[in-house]
Amino acid sequence: MNLPCIPSGYPDGMKPRNTSLDRFYSVIPAGGIGSRLWPLSRADAPKFLHDLTGSGQTLLRDTWDRLAPLSGDQRIMVVTGRAHRAAVEAQLPALADLNMVLESEPRDSTAAVGLAAAILERREPGVIIGSFAADHVIGDRRLFVAAVAEAVAAADAGYITTIGIKPTEPAIGFGYIHCGAAIDIEGAPSALLVDTFVEKPDLTTAEHYVASGDHLWNAGMFIARADRLLEEIGRSEPELLAGLLELAEVWDEPAKRGQAVDRIWPGLKKIAIDYSVAEPAAAAGTLAVIPGHFDWDDVGDFASLAKLNSGGRKSDLAILGENARVLSDASSGIVVTQTSRVISLIGVKDIIVVDTPDALLVTTTENAQRVKSVVDALKLSGGTDVL
Amino acid sequence: MNLPCIPSGYPDGMKPRNTSLDRFYSVIPAGGIGSRLWPLSRADAPKFLHDLTGSGQTLLRDTWDRLAPLSGDQRIMVVTGRAHRAAVEAQLPALADLNMVLESEPRDSTAAVGLAAAILERREPGVIIGSFAADHVIGDRRLFVAAVAEAVAAADAGYITTIGIKPTEPAIGFGYIHCGAAIDIEGAPSALLVDTFVEKPDLTTAEHYVASGDHLWNAGMFIARADRLLEEIGRSEPELLAGLLELAEVWDEPAKRGQAVDRIWPGLKKIAIDYSVAEPAAAAGTLAVIPGHFDWDDVGDFASLAKLNSGGRKSDLAILGENARVLSDASSGIVVTQTSRVISLIGVKDIIVVDTPDALLVTTTENAQRVKSVVDALKLSGGTDVL
Repeated sequence: MNLPCIPSGYPDGMKPRNTSLDRFYSVIPAGGIGSRLWPLSRADAPKFLHDLTGSGQTLLRDTWDRLAPLSGDQRIMVVTGRAHRAAVEAQLPALADLNMVLESEPRDSTAAVGLAAAILERREPGVIIGSFAADHVIGDRRLFVAAVAEAVAAADAGYITTIGIKPTEPAIGFGYIHCGAAIDIEGAPSALLVDTFVEKPDLTTAEHYVASGDHLWNAGMFIARADRLLEEIGRSEPELLAGLLELAEVWDEPAKRGQAVDRIWPGLKKIAIDYSVAEPAAAAGTLAVIPGHFDWDDVGDFASLAKLNSGGRKSDLAILGENARVLSDASSGIVVTQTSRVISLIGVKDIIVVDTPDALLVTTTENAQRVKSVVDALKLSGGTDVL
Repeated sequence: MNLPCIPSGYPDGMKPRNTSLDRFYSVIPAGGIGSRLWPLSRADAPKFLHDLTGSGQTLLRDTWDRLAPLSGDQRIMVVTGRAHRAAVEAQLPALADLNMVLESEPRDSTAAVGLAAAILERREPGVIIGSFAADHVIGDRRLFVAAVAEAVAAADAGYITTIGIKPTEPAIGFGYIHCGAAIDIEGAPSALLVDTFVEKPDLTTAEHYVASGDHLWNAGMFIARADRLLEEIGRSEPELLAGLLELAEVWDEPAKRGQAVDRIWPGLKKIAIDYSVAEPAAAAGTLAVIPGHFDWDDVGDFASLAKLNSGGRKSDLAILGENARVLSDASSGIVVTQTSRVISLIGVKDIIVVDTPDALLVTTTENAQRVKSVVDALKLSGGTDVL
């Protein structure tokens, strides 16, 4: 058996008693530009390649560092676009060549995670995979590890398992998970059945969800036995599954892989794993959730970035940028800068200023979700040089 | 007699009937950085060297073009800092060497205009000078020319004469002139005595001034016989006058000038001509005012620049910049850019964005007057590289 490397930093008491974690493999789909974070995030510098927390390293590297203690760094697979190969390798020097899966173009999460599942199941039947976005921010790692360990146990018992985040406020930017009855699974004492997945609610609904105590944020984390995941994909999207299995069959034969990708990948249906797997599994009573009690944010827009970097103090001005020279007078919000220009703010509240060498964004936290519309306008108006 | 060159573009019917205009000499004090327009205006690129109206030429050049029809381009003197010599020469190729007066350091308007008066009075006794800031914006030139022609006649009659602007709104950023009785002067039918000069008022007082009908904006324009101007300076500031006369005595002897400037100029008292000349003359009943009915603005801050460039439509976003690439959604105010960066604004009202290669300002029209405080903060904090 291929024992994962459990580093010495592994939290005390967190070492799982079951052995399902020995079969655990982390998958990091590193796709998505993060259009709401333009002009910081863009095609050649997507969100996961940025340090958005002032930690000194990229979100991708943060994700890796969170998962390495769980699966061992030889058991982390990254699925990303061909264009990002060099950047990902630079960020993750320990990533095995075998574990770099390159997409010729983005085909959404079912294709990305499903391909990883198919490849890994061929290599190692019975493997349990956990898919974690490359560009989310997570607080206490011990609590994260504890939740994943439970999720792996639930996955080993045959459930498609997600980790739902205990909401700290009635956020309207996230989807919610409506929890059902407790399930009795060894090694997963807090596992619950999932009743339904719900889309981003309005504020009143979100307040109701938070008050109810039985709703969690959908953080897009899925843990499952690879064979179970593929089974679910096959149930809702049989053609997509067929394409993935065909790819997986030749994946480890370099001479055949490239041709197969070119032939099959562009035709795969674009569908989020929430729709192809999670919702049908919830309906079938085979979706479990482990409540996560750690801080989590998908950093979906600059308002969330501002909150994340101001420690929750709304009156503060958060500043992100290695060479930032910011002078602020009676201003709040966030300045993100990639230049060393002097940036001076006077009397602007909840402002968002994003300063890059070739593009500048000025908006407010209230309008943060509208940033994507600028990207759309730039696409239409021939401003693609800055996208 | 040295007849001024009256170009063919001289407005019909505006040609003065008196001959005092033959003795008229324009003086343009081109000093002052315009700190409230930082980071656009700065030590090496002061306000008068910018095109702030989208006219395609600098305010200095606009000023020259306004005055040339009045005095002829051989009779315009520019008083500026040594550092701006090349820039001024480039802007004003017709400026005679003899008419370039260089200050070794700024000593405020009494010294600048007084030196010009002293030099010109020595060269041409009986000369009438008119001093006009290099960095103001003026609308209808025909109305301007008409007002100056009247002011020259009043000056010839011995009055220190100013041109006061008919207020169009209760501005709190300008000083006001309280008008008194009409004076009977040939060639100056609208001349009035000045009762008092009043400092920038609060809004209620300003509203009262505008309603009264007998208050004008102080636009800092002074027209006087040079001997009368020097006499007034001597009355309030005898030491300053002595220094100016000593400088003027050697001014046209290049071998002696430099040494005299180095010795005398730095010791001259810094005082605005409003205090040394206009207020005492008003008190003595020798200050006249010609009401000007043309549009005028001192472009004192970015709020006024925004208003100037939006045609008064507050809901609009004004854009200044040759290579501006601005995308705006539900935003108003002004963008001034010296770069070709894409600048995107979303949902920001009354915003001021000033984008230069090494400094960026974001504020609102309401806070426009506070920009100077940033310049002060930069001086204190070692940020002088961008001042």
